[in-house]
Amino acid sequence: MLLKDFNTYVDMAIEARDLVRGAANQEIPGVKEDVEQLEHIKVTTITVLNQAGADQLGRPIGTYVTIESPPLKINDPYVRDEIIQTMEKSMHAMIGDYLKPQDTVLLVGLGNWRAVADALGPKFIEYSPITRHYHSYAPDALVQGMRPICGIAPGVLGITGLETFEVIKGIVEKVKPALLVVVDALAAQNVERIGTSVQMSNTGIQPGSGVGNARHAIRQEDLGVPVIAIGCPTIVSAAVIANEAVKKFCLNSGASYNENASLNSIKEILSPFGGSMGVTPKEIDEIIENSARIISMGVARSLFPGISEEQLVLYAT
Amino acid sequence: MLLKDFNTYVDMAIEARDLVRGAANQEIPGVKEDVEQLEHIKVTTITVLNQAGADQLGRPIGTYVTIESPPLKINDPYVRDEIIQTMEKSMHAMIGDYLKPQDTVLLVGLGNWRAVADALGPKFIEYSPITRHYHSYAPDALVQGMRPICGIAPGVLGITGLETFEVIKGIVEKVKPALLVVVDALAAQNVERIGTSVQMSNTGIQPGSGVGNARHAIRQEDLGVPVIAIGCPTIVSAAVIANEAVKKFCLNSGASYNENASLNSIKEILSPFGGSMGVTPKEIDEIIENSARIISMGVARSLFPGISEEQLVLYAT
Amino acid sequence: MLLKDFNTYVDMAIEARDLVRGAANQEIPGVKEDVEQLEHIKVTTITVLNQAGADQLGRPIGTYVTIESPPLKINDPYVRDEIIQTMEKSMHAMIGDYLKPQDTVLLVGLGNWRAVADALGPKFIEYSPITRHYHSYAPDALVQGMRPICGIAPGVLGITGLETFEVIKGIVEKVKPALLVVVDALAAQNVERIGTSVQMSNTGIQPGSGVGNARHAIRQEDLGVPVIAIGCPTIVSAAVIANEAVKKFCLNSGASYNENASLNSIKEILSPFGGSMGVTPKEIDEIIENSARIISMGVARSLFPGISEEQLVLYAT
Amino acid sequence: MLLKDFNTYVDMAIEARDLVRGAANQEIPGVKEDVEQLEHIKVTTITVLNQAGADQLGRPIGTYVTIESPPLKINDPYVRDEIIQTMEKSMHAMIGDYLKPQDTVLLVGLGNWRAVADALGPKFIEYSPITRHYHSYAPDALVQGMRPICGIAPGVLGITGLETFEVIKGIVEKVKPALLVVVDALAAQNVERIGTSVQMSNTGIQPGSGVGNARHAIRQEDLGVPVIAIGCPTIVSAAVIANEAVKKFCLNSGASYNENASLNSIKEILSPFGGSMGVTPKEIDEIIENSARIISMGVARSLFPGISEEQLVLYAT
Repeated sequence: MLLKDFNTYVDMAIEARDLVRGAANQEIPGVKEDVEQLEHIKVTTITVLNQAGADQLGRPIGTYVTIESPPLKINDPYVRDEIIQTMEKSMHAMIGDYLKPQDTVLLVGLGNWRAVADALGPKFIEYSPITRHYHSYAPDALVQGMRPICGIAPGVLGITGLETFEVIKGIVEKVKPALLVVVDALAAQNVERIGTSVQMSNTGIQPGSGVGNARHAIRQEDLGVPVIAIGCPTIVSAAVIANEAVKKFCLNSGASYNENASLNSIKEILSPFGGSMGVTPKEIDEIIENSARIISMGVARSLFPGISEEQLVLYAT
Repeated sequence: MLLKDFNTYVDMAIEARDLVRGAANQEIPGVKEDVEQLEHIKVTTITVLNQAGADQLGRPIGTYVTIESPPLKINDPYVRDEIIQTMEKSMHAMIGDYLKPQDTVLLVGLGNWRAVADALGPKFIEYSPITRHYHSYAPDALVQGMRPICGIAPGVLGITGLETFEVIKGIVEKVKPALLVVVDALAAQNVERIGTSVQMSNTGIQPGSGVGNARHAIRQEDLGVPVIAIGCPTIVSAAVIANEAVKKFCLNSGASYNENASLNSIKEILSPFGGSMGVTPKEIDEIIENSARIISMGVARSLFPGISEEQLVLYAT
Repeated sequence: MLLKDFNTYVDMAIEARDLVRGAANQEIPGVKEDVEQLEHIKVTTITVLNQAGADQLGRPIGTYVTIESPPLKINDPYVRDEIIQTMEKSMHAMIGDYLKPQDTVLLVGLGNWRAVADALGPKFIEYSPITRHYHSYAPDALVQGMRPICGIAPGVLGITGLETFEVIKGIVEKVKPALLVVVDALAAQNVERIGTSVQMSNTGIQPGSGVGNARHAIRQEDLGVPVIAIGCPTIVSAAVIANEAVKKFCLNSGASYNENASLNSIKEILSPFGGSMGVTPKEIDEIIENSARIISMGVARSLFPGISEEQLVLYAT
Repeated sequence: MLLKDFNTYVDMAIEARDLVRGAANQEIPGVKEDVEQLEHIKVTTITVLNQAGADQLGRPIGTYVTIESPPLKINDPYVRDEIIQTMEKSMHAMIGDYLKPQDTVLLVGLGNWRAVADALGPKFIEYSPITRHYHSYAPDALVQGMRPICGIAPGVLGITGLETFEVIKGIVEKVKPALLVVVDALAAQNVERIGTSVQMSNTGIQPGSGVGNARHAIRQEDLGVPVIAIGCPTIVSAAVIANEAVKKFCLNSGASYNENASLNSIKEILSPFGGSMGVTPKEIDEIIENSARIISMGVARSLFPGISEEQLVLYAT
């Protein structure tokens, strides 16, 4: 039995790297890493350079930026500003000069608005400036430099009966945006990451990745449009936590750890809900709120360079 | 100056008929009318037979059923059952044997979930059974006869920057449903209609009809799929109410009514928000709640004939 | 027949003054008035000096500050800062040095969270810093100078079956705060005021004032604690709007206005819902959101003088 | 180190009994037990007869009824009816003829409405019939036999700064109800219980029991009014799950279990959020929704005996 049989999936590149490097901490061929320590935050850029690196890390060629800062979860305004600036810089590094000032951008907020820990994407849409309709109906109302932005939170399969890919692909074909920015809540391997990290990548996103089926990903190959994916860890699988506990117990007490035995024990305990059980802290609602606001400001700054926060606030829906 | 300059629009066929027939109450050529009085409700079926009728009534050829019942707004369970049965019958009259048991149906809930009086459509989606994903992922979990149903509340232009038509057309092209059922809150000409009527038609719907621009309608000609539109009046334009007050005052006090003078006076009063001001009762949240539940049950019964209410409840999201 | 038979009530002192002064614009004995024009806002302070003034104006002896600014409703950040500073100054003028640094303050958000236009009070609580529990459980977590603040949104009679006064009085007796700050949505006489004004007074508040019954007011005489009441106009009674339309029509068209005839006409039109019908603009959700944030920041600044916005944000629930 | 150091608490009497009886399954002196198997549900009544039993079981003298049924979580209508009837019967067994037809009952919904798994209490209030205000303002609108019911969801300390006890005690002193019915989400020791059980007792409730501090309980001794407490398990502490996994792993793999070592390992893993981490299934929003509706119907039936479901629905807020 394997952890992924519990529908777990390593959403964060930085955790995938740790798993691959393991205790020996050896380098991964085809994978480059840069770490930058700013005043309040640490920025790790993992670049998957070629197919060999992609195979090793289990994720596509591209760039993965992780911003880490413990005070993120308590909404410290100084940390917030540093994160927003870093997001702006990272977005620019990923899309370069590709985006022209009048290009339309489609924001997508994945996840289920009825489940607090999964509502990061929908809240991101709620807090982001939406301007595309002014371009058609009231262009004079627009501040100079406000590009057309539209946004949708498509919901999840269980409440719409629609694959996220179907909805997004349909809209992309009608709206023809130049770029997608997709935000989703992530599963972490470690509770320490909840409310303390933001991951950005230029490789797209696989909604409900863990399910292990053949769903289409929200990525350039399938949509024909570049995709920036942004996420925050908000949950850890109960199976992962329990397995870590068994591992640590064995280490501390000298018992011999056996993954298969551990996972089978956990399976019995979690059986009524299978792999769909997650661990979240009590304060998850505040963490989601803070993270969604920071991400929407970071994205807005990237898409409207040179526009003041005062002007941005005017267009938030 | 005309009432429609306040972005008002006569959403209900039964009210359009009254306006056209006027005081003289003459028949409208090309328009047929049937009235049926049941125990608790009155059912009026207006059929626009040809282009002459369509021109007169200002709406497309097709069938418009209005179910009226004052106790609807107080959630009387006996009335509810009669309405649900009538909806089932009317749906069948409109779509006949067109829909095959395995055909997919897409439910669309128009309107803005943040504005209580406009949230009828989104709430309809919330209360409707959604089953399409079971057909792919867990067909054995399905009760015999549960056809594939999917549903979306696309939001409004002001909060997504997307035309409703763009979103729906995109999804229709991907999902290829056999039928659309579209639910929206309606504007009435008379506060008496709020919470006391349901309108069903087979002619589609024009979201935010009043705006008078060239937006695409959600209808068969544009989508390639038959559309059943269902709505409840939840609001009356403040301009309509004020104009009625002037009219009635003139009638009662013997003053001479002049529409242009009346509307110009009203324009001054409503100027800060133009035509976007609406009148709703305090209890509008309960009215929306009740109406959304009744409509979702009426639609579900039509789409899953022969299935018990107990079974339906199991699939409500 | 009188306007107040429609359960209307002149919530704003500035409008009561206009009604009393009338066309002749004569001074009101016992009522003093100060107007200050700042860069973006106009501040009118009406002081009811004695019982004669109170009888004339129909409201208790005390101070009523109205802050007016059309751009308030579009969330202009410059205007926001001026409003917040004025609120801080006005609060200080009203409570002087009465409040000691360790005194507990109880925030009360009146209104119905299910009705958008009535949700100003509950949203105010949501955005305000709450700190009283830290004083008992984690005093070290507190920034120096964070006084104990607690807050409640007691709901409305129709959904709790409890008089607001019963709930507040009960809590006041247990918590023994030194001051109450009560926020509520107000009814205006003019749509121009919606989203453009804030009223502050030191005379307390009468929840659901219009109903004309003997409910207890939320005020010092009944609670034993000083009360600062803050409100924003969010709705105009449909009866008021319609009556204004009749009046203006008569003025414009030379017909002779008769209040009784006008109100009787309006009564017929609004009869299914009586006086409970209100007029709101479509964008009321955004107006409420902006106003609640501004008020909560203005109140927080007054209660925690010398504390930075960064520190305040840390304690918002 | 002990499990309760993670702020866990055995909320369910049936689980406390299992822990006390242990593997040996011996009887507990002073504790009586009755099990009744109905068609779809199992009803276990645990009666703590005296102080010896109370000391053993760690909970006060009184009656604890647990209704168990796996299909509860999928909203099966047949099971629902059996649960509602059992609740009515159990309420009657607990309060006997104490409650007179005109006696006022105060419903209290504990918990945090912003956290899905903790919103059972607030949702219970939302779905319950509220009638007390009709008795004062519109007694003729009442169906014969509708006693005065009022209800409040006081929120949690972290968002109000108020102890739940302070709020409830204050209201009880003003309203003077004859009975309190308090609903809260419970923590279970086993994920199998989530969405499959309802517990009722006549001994009151300790909000946020796990915290281990001296907060006042919501119970007759402190309030002067009998209290019926009703709860559903919606969450399991992450520490409990992880510890069970270690235990089962040891059992299955022959390693020797040591509680202290296990809990210390778990503490390291959960450290960033301490004991406040909980495990919930993905579908917790639906489970809460179904459970709140069933409980509100069960309570309503008990408080309005002989009134039809149709009549009850008319008074739900």
